[in-house]
Amino acid sequence: MHYLYRGLVSAVLALAFVAPSMGRESDFPVPDTVSPQLQAMIGAGIPRGWDKPPRTTEEWKAWIAAAAEKQKAALPALREKLGVTMTHTVMAGVPVFVFEPRDFTDDGRLLLNLHGGGYVLGPGEAGTQEAILMAGIGKFRVVYADYRMAPDFPYPAAIDDAMAVYRELLKTTPAKNIGVFGTSTGGAMTLILALRAKAEGLPLPGALASGTPWAQMNKKGDSYFTNEGVDNVLVSYDGWLAGAASLYAGGHDMEAPYLSPVNGDVHGFPPTLLTSGTRDLFLSNTVRMHLKLREAGVPADLIVFEGLSHAQYHMDENMPEGRFHFEELGRFFRRNLAERQS
Amino acid sequence: MHYLYRGLVSAVLALAFVAPSMGRESDFPVPDTVSPQLQAMIGAGIPRGWDKPPRTTEEWKAWIAAAAEKQKAALPALREKLGVTMTHTVMAGVPVFVFEPRDFTDDGRLLLNLHGGGYVLGPGEAGTQEAILMAGIGKFRVVYADYRMAPDFPYPAAIDDAMAVYRELLKTTPAKNIGVFGTSTGGAMTLILALRAKAEGLPLPGALASGTPWAQMNKKGDSYFTNEGVDNVLVSYDGWLAGAASLYAGGHDMEAPYLSPVNGDVHGFPPTLLTSGTRDLFLSNTVRMHLKLREAGVPADLIVFEGLSHAQYHMDENMPEGRFHFEELGRFFRRNLAERQS
Repeated sequence: MHYLYRGLVSAVLALAFVAPSMGRESDFPVPDTVSPQLQAMIGAGIPRGWDKPPRTTEEWKAWIAAAAEKQKAALPALREKLGVTMTHTVMAGVPVFVFEPRDFTDDGRLLLNLHGGGYVLGPGEAGTQEAILMAGIGKFRVVYADYRMAPDFPYPAAIDDAMAVYRELLKTTPAKNIGVFGTSTGGAMTLILALRAKAEGLPLPGALASGTPWAQMNKKGDSYFTNEGVDNVLVSYDGWLAGAASLYAGGHDMEAPYLSPVNGDVHGFPPTLLTSGTRDLFLSNTVRMHLKLREAGVPADLIVFEGLSHAQYHMDENMPEGRFHFEELGRFFRRNLAERQS
Repeated sequence: MHYLYRGLVSAVLALAFVAPSMGRESDFPVPDTVSPQLQAMIGAGIPRGWDKPPRTTEEWKAWIAAAAEKQKAALPALREKLGVTMTHTVMAGVPVFVFEPRDFTDDGRLLLNLHGGGYVLGPGEAGTQEAILMAGIGKFRVVYADYRMAPDFPYPAAIDDAMAVYRELLKTTPAKNIGVFGTSTGGAMTLILALRAKAEGLPLPGALASGTPWAQMNKKGDSYFTNEGVDNVLVSYDGWLAGAASLYAGGHDMEAPYLSPVNGDVHGFPPTLLTSGTRDLFLSNTVRMHLKLREAGVPADLIVFEGLSHAQYHMDENMPEGRFHFEELGRFFRRNLAERQS
């Protein structure tokens, strides 16, 4: 029936000389070239309601709060399972969580994590999953900046807070001992932090890991189209993402480098590791950023996971692809960050 | 009209709970995030006749010969333009072409090129475009093995010839001074050569560059499906590729490592650079191989070009993406290959 139906659709398409770019959901077989955990994620299909994003400020806040409750529910067990401790503090006025693995040896190196969520999701503790995984699997001390977000705090509040925490860290830790990492919006903020550090005359971090970065904030780049309906996390730019972009940009030009770091001058960046997946809506964001770095002579490394949609590497702590990701990040930062001078 | 039509198709799809995987041709906008040359390639759409591959041995031979004539026609001008000389010789019974840039300085390093073409295309001089570009842009001496192919010579004729040339090169050049590279089938053969060198007790080449390798010979891997009809070079596994696979494998198990090197044991491989594109039908082949190498601790590097379909980096010598590719290969081999001991 599938093939019969495909024939029917093809016939209709031939008449009109066009084909649908959406409506591709669930059409592709679940690949047997990924882990069982990732197969399950892929098999779950497109999330309901992706095409009904919040519209009013109240709807956004309710949606963000509901998502945060879900995100937070799993975190205590995750910390327990991975043997990660969490402490809460404030740095330069910004709420901060610090994560450490139980078997942690302090060699002076630390990581600053900027979480994802389109500058709207993941308030408070809710966005700390990636930080926990990095501490627990990658074996680093991770400082997590709970930066301000839209709709209440549009650009540049989020990156201002990240910069404030980075400046504060520099008071006790040399830049070359500090790595910065994040995913999606956090992957973009990782790059923007380095752009701003350059512009503001601060020393740059010793290394950056930018996972599937929102490097181009508006809908520009091939995979926004080719992976539309293939990525089953974001699904499409025209879901909640477009609204979040608009809320955070607040009328600023989305092509500006501090919103779309793919347009920034990346000469002099430290070693940078980028990560994406073949189904990722942000595959183009990632590879464009990677090529831009390579063209500027930056030692930039790329990993693309088979079958992975946007940011799925931090969504199941048992998934081999995800464990490999955090192990690779651990190796990358250990190779590229300096240790404390004794 | 496009959107109207999309709506119609979506409505039909909703009734049947399936969507077409083909029929996606020309649907996606040509991205403005790639060079004008690549935009032109993307804009050219799906090649006519991709779904009418040869059936009989005679049809294959006629198709291969016609393709070879077309391929060869442009080569003298390309060599002239890039200032590359070609000499023809025979090594260990295998016809060989040697390419050198005019401003070549012999430091003892050389590259062995294994051309692409599904083990059927590119006989004689016809498959030398990539070798010319590597010599002219990457500034290396390139030895090109004109290995035997299907339908007359199925597995293992092609890789046997490549091994024979490699063994011959080892008589005058240390392995650590030799790089091996190729695209598509040649990218797979590059990896298979290293697998066989290991198995046969030969020293491994100093570095490998495997462009969009046919790492999995049968239709297994996510992008065989997700990029079907998106890639406008190969279009689909179920065009001529399936037939070529069958002709070369000749009844051998396509999962065997010497046909699908993604199934090989790559421990101990030298530094390896892999290249693909976001629209590449072999994106999964490439990233699966990359991850396999990384998991084995091999220093493996990946470049994925925005908007690129299969192997397009060697199809236009003026295209910035292609020039960058060959410059990167040049840097990669210069970094990783030893020079002659003086």
